[in-house]
Amino acid sequence: MQKLIITAALTGAEVTKKQQPNLPITPEEIAEAAYEAYKAGASIVHIHARDKDGNPTQDYEVYKEIKERIEAKCPVIFQPSTGGAVWHTPEERLQPVELRPEMATLSCGTCNFGPDVFMNSQEYMEKFAKRMKELGVKPELEIFERGMIKNALALVKKGLIDEPLHFDFVMGVPGAIPGEIRDLLYLVESIPQGSTWTVAGIGRYELPLATAAILLGGHVRVGFEDNIYYKKGELAKSNAQLVERIVRLSHELGREVATPDEAREILNIKRK
Amino acid sequence: MQKLIITAALTGAEVTKKQQPNLPITPEEIAEAAYEAYKAGASIVHIHARDKDGNPTQDYEVYKEIKERIEAKCPVIFQPSTGGAVWHTPEERLQPVELRPEMATLSCGTCNFGPDVFMNSQEYMEKFAKRMKELGVKPELEIFERGMIKNALALVKKGLIDEPLHFDFVMGVPGAIPGEIRDLLYLVESIPQGSTWTVAGIGRYELPLATAAILLGGHVRVGFEDNIYYKKGELAKSNAQLVERIVRLSHELGREVATPDEAREILNIKRK
Amino acid sequence: MQKLIITAALTGAEVTKKQQPNLPITPEEIAEAAYEAYKAGASIVHIHARDKDGNPTQDYEVYKEIKERIEAKCPVIFQPSTGGAVWHTPEERLQPVELRPEMATLSCGTCNFGPDVFMNSQEYMEKFAKRMKELGVKPELEIFERGMIKNALALVKKGLIDEPLHFDFVMGVPGAIPGEIRDLLYLVESIPQGSTWTVAGIGRYELPLATAAILLGGHVRVGFEDNIYYKKGELAKSNAQLVERIVRLSHELGREVATPDEAREILNIKRK
Amino acid sequence: MQKLIITAALTGAEVTKKQQPNLPITPEEIAEAAYEAYKAGASIVHIHARDKDGNPTQDYEVYKEIKERIEAKCPVIFQPSTGGAVWHTPEERLQPVELRPEMATLSCGTCNFGPDVFMNSQEYMEKFAKRMKELGVKPELEIFERGMIKNALALVKKGLIDEPLHFDFVMGVPGAIPGEIRDLLYLVESIPQGSTWTVAGIGRYELPLATAAILLGGHVRVGFEDNIYYKKGELAKSNAQLVERIVRLSHELGREVATPDEAREILNIKRK
Ligand SMILES: [Mg+2]
Ligand SMILES: [Mg+2]
Ligand SMILES: [Zn+2]
Ligand SMILES: [Zn+2]
Ligand SMILES: [Zn+2]
Ligand SMILES: [Zn+2]
Repeated sequence: MQKLIITAALTGAEVTKKQQPNLPITPEEIAEAAYEAYKAGASIVHIHARDKDGNPTQDYEVYKEIKERIEAKCPVIFQPSTGGAVWHTPEERLQPVELRPEMATLSCGTCNFGPDVFMNSQEYMEKFAKRMKELGVKPELEIFERGMIKNALALVKKGLIDEPLHFDFVMGVPGAIPGEIRDLLYLVESIPQGSTWTVAGIGRYELPLATAAILLGGHVRVGFEDNIYYKKGELAKSNAQLVERIVRLSHELGREVATPDEAREILNIKRK
Repeated sequence: MQKLIITAALTGAEVTKKQQPNLPITPEEIAEAAYEAYKAGASIVHIHARDKDGNPTQDYEVYKEIKERIEAKCPVIFQPSTGGAVWHTPEERLQPVELRPEMATLSCGTCNFGPDVFMNSQEYMEKFAKRMKELGVKPELEIFERGMIKNALALVKKGLIDEPLHFDFVMGVPGAIPGEIRDLLYLVESIPQGSTWTVAGIGRYELPLATAAILLGGHVRVGFEDNIYYKKGELAKSNAQLVERIVRLSHELGREVATPDEAREILNIKRK
Repeated sequence: MQKLIITAALTGAEVTKKQQPNLPITPEEIAEAAYEAYKAGASIVHIHARDKDGNPTQDYEVYKEIKERIEAKCPVIFQPSTGGAVWHTPEERLQPVELRPEMATLSCGTCNFGPDVFMNSQEYMEKFAKRMKELGVKPELEIFERGMIKNALALVKKGLIDEPLHFDFVMGVPGAIPGEIRDLLYLVESIPQGSTWTVAGIGRYELPLATAAILLGGHVRVGFEDNIYYKKGELAKSNAQLVERIVRLSHELGREVATPDEAREILNIKRK
Repeated sequence: MQKLIITAALTGAEVTKKQQPNLPITPEEIAEAAYEAYKAGASIVHIHARDKDGNPTQDYEVYKEIKERIEAKCPVIFQPSTGGAVWHTPEERLQPVELRPEMATLSCGTCNFGPDVFMNSQEYMEKFAKRMKELGVKPELEIFERGMIKNALALVKKGLIDEPLHFDFVMGVPGAIPGEIRDLLYLVESIPQGSTWTVAGIGRYELPLATAAILLGGHVRVGFEDNIYYKKGELAKSNAQLVERIVRLSHELGREVATPDEAREILNIKRK
């Protein structure tokens, strides 16, 4: 079985300091959280930027500062979001790709997201994929429903994404696929052979889905974007604390954890 | 096993006379197609109205004329769409419900629909469900992805839909869940016990999914909205021709076909 | 999708003339039934011999006579059973393989069979596979439970069976795997890519599983060995009548039926 | 979710001291191992007796001594095997049931077991179930293949077993169902609602299947009968060590561990 790639989704677009006081918001805080997650065992950090008021922003300059600050501290893979927040325009969302990061997320379809709609029309998926390809950015294909795998494969067919593919199953979002293990197995059995996948379980689904991924040969995403609790009723102290638990479980279950360079090899990306 | 309920989806919002010359467009044509489908074995007709130019409309008066014309001909269950076309507003879409039909569709989430986005936010799902409940209209819960079943159950929990539930799995739409039998089984195994379901396979998925539904104890939707071909490269002559094939298959497979009144009993709706 | 291979299992070891008056028993009757099944659309006949009292026998000479009589009539593939009856010794069971038929069945494990036990220990599976390989006989791997697929792959690993593999899922036997479509999908998803498979549903499972196989790209076995009824409460008139229904369904569902030579090509066997 | 019931399968019929030097063999050793497993968190001990030479025996007196020695030490549930070793006669195998233990295993069908055949004909399953019912012994239904669930339900239908049912999925035995998570899910989705289940993964399947059971709401069996290693290439020090790891995982995953009395309540058995 491949070594386990752990992604730390440090901030997200929706969580507030009020909900989770240890949420990293400023570039300094995000870089420090990235460094701690790296030390804990993460090989990828999934990044959403915030502006000075703490609101989500897709601003190029803010992402640039975060990227540089992280790179100054550690060799973890920097993976900006192109999902942004549900009210961002596609053009806003695409900005961090211009930084030519090693990876970036690419959301593969539209679904409800609680009371909102997370819009990813075919036209914009194609634009995002095309630009990532031009800039040599490996897409992490974000999958919220079964049909989105089909959408991703349609991008492959059009020559806009190169194989091998790497999927991120985001599960348990209100409005999209649930987070039970049968749902995960269904998705895993729906992707092409030779693909890699990670799972991001939302809220109470984070820990069981992560554990299932360790067993199934997938990879794991944890962090405040997806879940702010350590256990029921107890807030996590840091993103790193959530990473540490995954490392502990992975060792208990006999699976080694990948370094950033090992993750690059597994994901077929070259360090820039 | 329950008798088989066949729904004929006569017109839809997207097909044109150019693609399918026998597409019923005017209220007269739609009523005649409904009558023929009824004679062939359909117990429900799923209706989309068109305006004088053949474009989709959700106009109350047009639906009213279609409803009256059908009722004058036969006792088939009249089921208007509240999905309309992808560019209709929610308020437009809801109009035919005011006719207090026995049933109407209720789309349970948002997804891509080819190049378009089919929008069904939580807010509007709740409005639609509430109004249907007030007017005693049985919703057919349209499911394009797994998460939409979860959305429907959230409406039940809020008291906006009454059990037993009736689902319509719309499968094979570009942008949403594929139309393989494993996808169908996954959905069937995801609904509450005591529910009924039908399947509407799009294009080449229509016939195999319909056949699988006959075997699995589900129900079947066919018609020009979903599929205009009789077989590869050969246009169907009429909606009734597609219904006839399902009746033939159902008999060959040892399952009886429901009359409209038997369908009402299976679906727990009272004839108005 | 491949053309459909239909196997007619004409006689079996358990059915009696009393249960099914049209059961073929003598070599003449079996050859005539094979010929009729071939004319109806079967490309393989699965054969169990009977002695002069109508009891199951694995006698070489009886199989030889049946084989010669069938070959004199038509080019259908002759596939003797090595399962025999539950009380036959392995040595008895193996005899028809010495005729060097194009195919023969190879049961891949032990399970209850109603009140009896159908014994296929690892030792004897290996002996059977070895002898079939020596004589150039293509095995049809009979699978009554999930684990038997694993057993078959163990024979491949030992070099006793050559790929591509051909499986026969025997489903609905009292004592072994049930005959629901979910069980079939589970088995289908458990065999190596590039394998072919057929399904033999027992009793009332024959028709729905056969239909599912037509849809799923598998192949179909029908006949008095598995099922003696045409429909509930109505005995079939002949094996050919059961084959005819499958041909009708296959055509209705848009799938062509294979001739014996087309079946040979699909199964990768050379006509002897 | 129910608290987790951990069963320690201390000895089995096949493992030798040579393979696992810490294997408990004598009644004293088995009772001591039971006590240590209980202290580690087990609420059930699954027992196979050995004779003075260390060979498996189903002798009543030996089981009696083991039972009394365990009861003198701790309140753990004593669950003797009626599977015995593959060469024991049914009459031998049934003996420990005469001790009127709270539970005993009941194997629900026949399958290959490596080079051997594990025989459980319908006749003997019925005899075993009948005697357990007469003596008020709760059966743990041992399932090695999908069809065995069907066999168990046939015993329920004949009035030989009372609901609620408790299943033990024995997975990864050479000759029977594999030990992948998809196989486990398939079995879990095949039992009646309201049943409980545990999983005994053989060899390298023990740990991943146990972890999956913790996540899925099932229960867990570990111990030298199923697996003698702590990790690849490293023998376990004791049955208790294997139990401890499950307790640690269960706590890490947020699930509490049941005491023997809590296990009795979950399994609907009364302490004798
Ligand atoms: Mg969607
Ligand atoms: Mg078996
Ligand atoms: Zn994100
Ligand atoms: Zn419609
Ligand atoms: Zn046979
Ligand atoms: Zn045991």
